[in-house]
Amino acid sequence: MRGTILYGARDVRFEERDDPRIINPTDAIIKMTAACVCGSDLWPYRGVQEITEPTPMGHEYCGVVEEVGDDVKSIKPGQFVIGSFFASDNTCPHCQAGYQTSCQHKEFITEAQAEFLRVPLADGTLVATPEAPSEDLIPSLLTTSDVLGTGWFAAVAADVKPGKTAVVVGDGAVGLLGVLSVKQMGAERIIAMSRHESRQKLAREFGATDIVTERGEEGVARIKDMTHGIGADAVLECVGTQESMMQAIGCTRPGGSVGYVGMPHGVELDGQALFFTHVRLHGGPAPVRNFLPKLIELVLSGKITPGKVFDLTLPLDQVAEGYRAMDERRAIKTLLRP
Amino acid sequence: MRGTILYGARDVRFEERDDPRIINPTDAIIKMTAACVCGSDLWPYRGVQEITEPTPMGHEYCGVVEEVGDDVKSIKPGQFVIGSFFASDNTCPHCQAGYQTSCQHKEFITEAQAEFLRVPLADGTLVATPEAPSEDLIPSLLTTSDVLGTGWFAAVAADVKPGKTAVVVGDGAVGLLGVLSVKQMGAERIIAMSRHESRQKLAREFGATDIVTERGEEGVARIKDMTHGIGADAVLECVGTQESMMQAIGCTRPGGSVGYVGMPHGVELDGQALFFTHVRLHGGPAPVRNFLPKLIELVLSGKITPGKVFDLTLPLDQVAEGYRAMDERRAIKTLLRP
Repeated sequence: MRGTILYGARDVRFEERDDPRIINPTDAIIKMTAACVCGSDLWPYRGVQEITEPTPMGHEYCGVVEEVGDDVKSIKPGQFVIGSFFASDNTCPHCQAGYQTSCQHKEFITEAQAEFLRVPLADGTLVATPEAPSEDLIPSLLTTSDVLGTGWFAAVAADVKPGKTAVVVGDGAVGLLGVLSVKQMGAERIIAMSRHESRQKLAREFGATDIVTERGEEGVARIKDMTHGIGADAVLECVGTQESMMQAIGCTRPGGSVGYVGMPHGVELDGQALFFTHVRLHGGPAPVRNFLPKLIELVLSGKITPGKVFDLTLPLDQVAEGYRAMDERRAIKTLLRP
Repeated sequence: MRGTILYGARDVRFEERDDPRIINPTDAIIKMTAACVCGSDLWPYRGVQEITEPTPMGHEYCGVVEEVGDDVKSIKPGQFVIGSFFASDNTCPHCQAGYQTSCQHKEFITEAQAEFLRVPLADGTLVATPEAPSEDLIPSLLTTSDVLGTGWFAAVAADVKPGKTAVVVGDGAVGLLGVLSVKQMGAERIIAMSRHESRQKLAREFGATDIVTERGEEGVARIKDMTHGIGADAVLECVGTQESMMQAIGCTRPGGSVGYVGMPHGVELDGQALFFTHVRLHGGPAPVRNFLPKLIELVLSGKITPGKVFDLTLPLDQVAEGYRAMDERRAIKTLLRP
């Protein structure tokens, strides 16, 4: 089969690789229906995160089960399945508490921009749809694998409640789907912080009631202005830089919550400064598996169309162009079809 | 009148000062019934927090109202009252949300180790008891002014729930009353981390089911051992150092909460490390005013005896010895009587 390998900064290649095979009896092999490029893939692509050896890429996936190991009970060949970017047994205490990305047996998925994929702990990791979904639903279903689940977790972690004011920091695909999530959870006022017109438009489509273009301290001042000096009840941090984290904390009212899902790069928090904000902080790698059944149901029932974040679709073998387009901000998110 | 002034590291003096008087029409003057030395007073006493000029000390107080300003409506001369270490109007949006220590008009109280005290925003800040309390209740009532309210907030911020496992980091007076608070909230297993025998004894009296003497990484390993490798649901951080904060975060299960009330000194949190813990972090200066009515009621009804944390009682004019005893760990907490 063929798959995607990152050789170094801005050097992505699609090349011949060994077919994945069952290694553990709890594995499944799936034939990829769709994969995509994640915002977090850009950290190593841009050289911010060092690559020391050729690294297979991709952790968002959906497809059809080809083969399962002897111990796989609930997942069957022929099913259309979606899984999280972390394989998890879904039975350990952390999984049972809803934190499958802290599963005691977790394994990171890292070869999904390929024609086939081995998924460990298949019974715990994969969720099958009741039947093969129609073609038009594929993009939206794919988002549940990571980007939607991550935006959703940001909203859960920020404790979004009906009638409240929510702010979303970051207008990448996660931030935009954070807006969609916040809307689903009934927030009344939804403020998207975005400077890019095309993204503002999508944010409004997903439910944003206000757009703020200012960033940093100016952005915080603007949010304070808009909330009678109080700050927002819930703030979703969907970037992962020092500036975005400080912006998120600054926008939050005392007693309000920041849900942070942008993988922090170089973020340092001063304990005493945080102390006096009275802000609640929760986040981490999104336990997508926890939300998958609900999110799949929302997509299948037509209540949400998160697939709109894909503004570029390419054949899988043009994956390198998919990275380039996102790196150069020509695309919000690239869908890849084998 | 006479009051307490800190002139520099380990230089506390009790000396003649001007009587406090009504400055704003919302002020009250109270005659001190009891005051005390706070663990946080030891930061400047020890020179960790620099003192640039002679500084009046004390922020925990209860007493009898002598005089009120023209705009004070609910508080009346002759009432026995207790207030928080931050004056607050109790009407602004932050107060209404239960975060009175972020009140838009907050003022820090800092002259309470004295014979008389001016309390700003008296109607918002002070809570009167139904009648003059009996002498034996004074120590416990005094704790509601800060140290109990702070331990209580740590438990609230750590989201303690009936039947859950809670860990308390820090065996100072706040930590010990954190144990009492956690017990009141119905935690089933209460692990106090303490090395000092007299404090362990009090922790057990307040409801601790287990004592852990190890600290740092060893302490974390011990807690993990005791919780089947999972970690605790709720952890109260009642110290404020880098080590204690890391210990608290390390003891917490993914999805669990750290309530931190130890004023952070030199604490830096690495964003990425925090991200992967999946821990929820909440804390800050305890909004004691929020809890005062409930805590006073618990004391008056005899359900709790938090005043046991005072293991040294001195006349107010011996306040310097009160600081010394706490600094040298001869006393957990010093009660001062004019």
